[in-house]
Amino acid sequence: MVYNIFKKHKLNSQHAKISAEALINAELVGAHGHGLSRLKMYCERIKKRLINPKPNIKIKKISSSISHVDADNSIGFVAADISIKTAIKNAKKTGIGLVATKNSNHYGLSGYYAEKAVKKNLVVMIFTNAPPAVAPFGAIKSLFGTNPICFGTPTNYKAPFILDTSISKINRGKIRFAEINNKKLPKGVALDKFGKPTTDAKKALKGVQLPIGDFRGSGLAWMVDILSGVLTGANHGGKVKDPFDDFTGPQNVGHLFFVFKPNLFVKDYNDRIKKNVKLIKKLPKIKNIKEILYPGENKFKRFKINSKKKIKIPKNILKSIKELTFD
Amino acid sequence: MVYNIFKKHKLNSQHAKISAEALINAELVGAHGHGLSRLKMYCERIKKRLINPKPNIKIKKISSSISHVDADNSIGFVAADISIKTAIKNAKKTGIGLVATKNSNHYGLSGYYAEKAVKKNLVVMIFTNAPPAVAPFGAIKSLFGTNPICFGTPTNYKAPFILDTSISKINRGKIRFAEINNKKLPKGVALDKFGKPTTDAKKALKGVQLPIGDFRGSGLAWMVDILSGVLTGANHGGKVKDPFDDFTGPQNVGHLFFVFKPNLFVKDYNDRIKKNVKLIKKLPKIKNIKEILYPGENKFKRFKINSKKKIKIPKNILKSIKELTFD
Repeated sequence: MVYNIFKKHKLNSQHAKISAEALINAELVGAHGHGLSRLKMYCERIKKRLINPKPNIKIKKISSSISHVDADNSIGFVAADISIKTAIKNAKKTGIGLVATKNSNHYGLSGYYAEKAVKKNLVVMIFTNAPPAVAPFGAIKSLFGTNPICFGTPTNYKAPFILDTSISKINRGKIRFAEINNKKLPKGVALDKFGKPTTDAKKALKGVQLPIGDFRGSGLAWMVDILSGVLTGANHGGKVKDPFDDFTGPQNVGHLFFVFKPNLFVKDYNDRIKKNVKLIKKLPKIKNIKEILYPGENKFKRFKINSKKKIKIPKNILKSIKELTFD
Repeated sequence: MVYNIFKKHKLNSQHAKISAEALINAELVGAHGHGLSRLKMYCERIKKRLINPKPNIKIKKISSSISHVDADNSIGFVAADISIKTAIKNAKKTGIGLVATKNSNHYGLSGYYAEKAVKKNLVVMIFTNAPPAVAPFGAIKSLFGTNPICFGTPTNYKAPFILDTSISKINRGKIRFAEINNKKLPKGVALDKFGKPTTDAKKALKGVQLPIGDFRGSGLAWMVDILSGVLTGANHGGKVKDPFDDFTGPQNVGHLFFVFKPNLFVKDYNDRIKKNVKLIKKLPKIKNIKEILYPGENKFKRFKINSKKKIKIPKNILKSIKELTFD
């Protein structure tokens, strides 16, 4: 159904497939804020030509390791897919691949693209900026996105190590999901537009999300904005438009993909990473914690479980999918 | 005096100069926990041959962009100095430089080395691991170091943008400094060895430091341990020895230096970064905040001020310097 909806919105078969797979993957790993709850928004932006369904994506070769992707305002999934594949190709050739992407849109989960590199036995870092959600330290107005930092590595275990962490205390997708489903936010993660703490998702979206570690998280968000926005030629400094609320123009999100071979410096990387994980897993645990998990393990487990069973989709989201299919 | 102390401890003139400059720089930027308070410790480790005063440092060329440094257990300042210079050279040649360093020791402030790259008009990321201080999420025992993430870029303003942030709520150097000077810690940054919150520096050093953002900070610390330890051939997984407390062997700290040209993808990087900083600086401010500062600005200002005046050195530290000079 999702594939057909994208096709109906003029994406070609390949792009519709890439986009549908990314959305369904988000549902399967349990990241509902990056899944079907965004489908209607993507379609609206395509209809209004704020996302280009027929992009002419250009890959400029800077060196055998470095490439620049101009995504021509394609849907973010397609821009990210081409970019990570280019970074992987460069890294396989020279040991290291650096790809900067401009004129892109929201691409969902960074970890999804990191996994593509890890499956090719590569280490990966990915940065992307996002619409204003977090205030720089000292300011009372949002400017930074939740600007995730993403890192992945093969582990020699079943699940890859995929850290995909926003620098805000909570992901914006989770707030969107709470808003749609009338759920409360945890305490201490957001302020309303008057600067007062709130657990109301609607108020939080109009206010400010709080960064992890105060000035530390604010600094990390700033770093991500520079790496993915200033460096790449994309929007930055609070100019990335909110895909849900702002229909005045394309987002021009920027991404940076950095990929390299794990055995550049040591022959036994696989053994070393396995030992590293083992040492940490066998530490004494906090009460009621059964197992120390590495980043990505939970999503991997949820993916396995959800792939084999029916997934519950909230009624309002199911309704929007049906409308998109049959309208 | 510091230069002569290092010379007396068998470092050659060049290495003594590099090390003395790094320590004095830490004092001038106000990072006292990385300054003279560590001099005695470095000398003790050299005396006990846990740091090699006459290292045979090897630089292995992996490609024209990538190098591997075996620091032969040199003092960390020297290992980092050679490594960042190699990364800069590679980046100037090919646009991108990646250098991994093993068999190193504590090198002080990552930002100090980042600045060297930024002064050559390069963008830089630096990772290093450190002795156990932070418990992985779910564990009750420290294993990760405060594992800083460091990022630097030219700004087109006077001060470079240098983010140098530990993933713990407070730097370990600051706890050491509080311990020596009998000062209390802020609340909520550490637990004692029984897992209870503490503001006592001595108890915190024997207990656990808390990461920023719970599982997020823990994940970032893990990423840094993999990048600087597992990847480089250095110690990792909690095996880096504490330089103050553990005299059973060399630390074998690992570092990773990633440097690249800012104008790889855009011609007007200098204008773009200037605009980025300007947009953020002019945001409405929290009450009593005079100016929104970017990371590194404070240290830059302190350096300017402190370079022109006498610096106060705590009595016990002055005493240790005199002892090292005259014993």
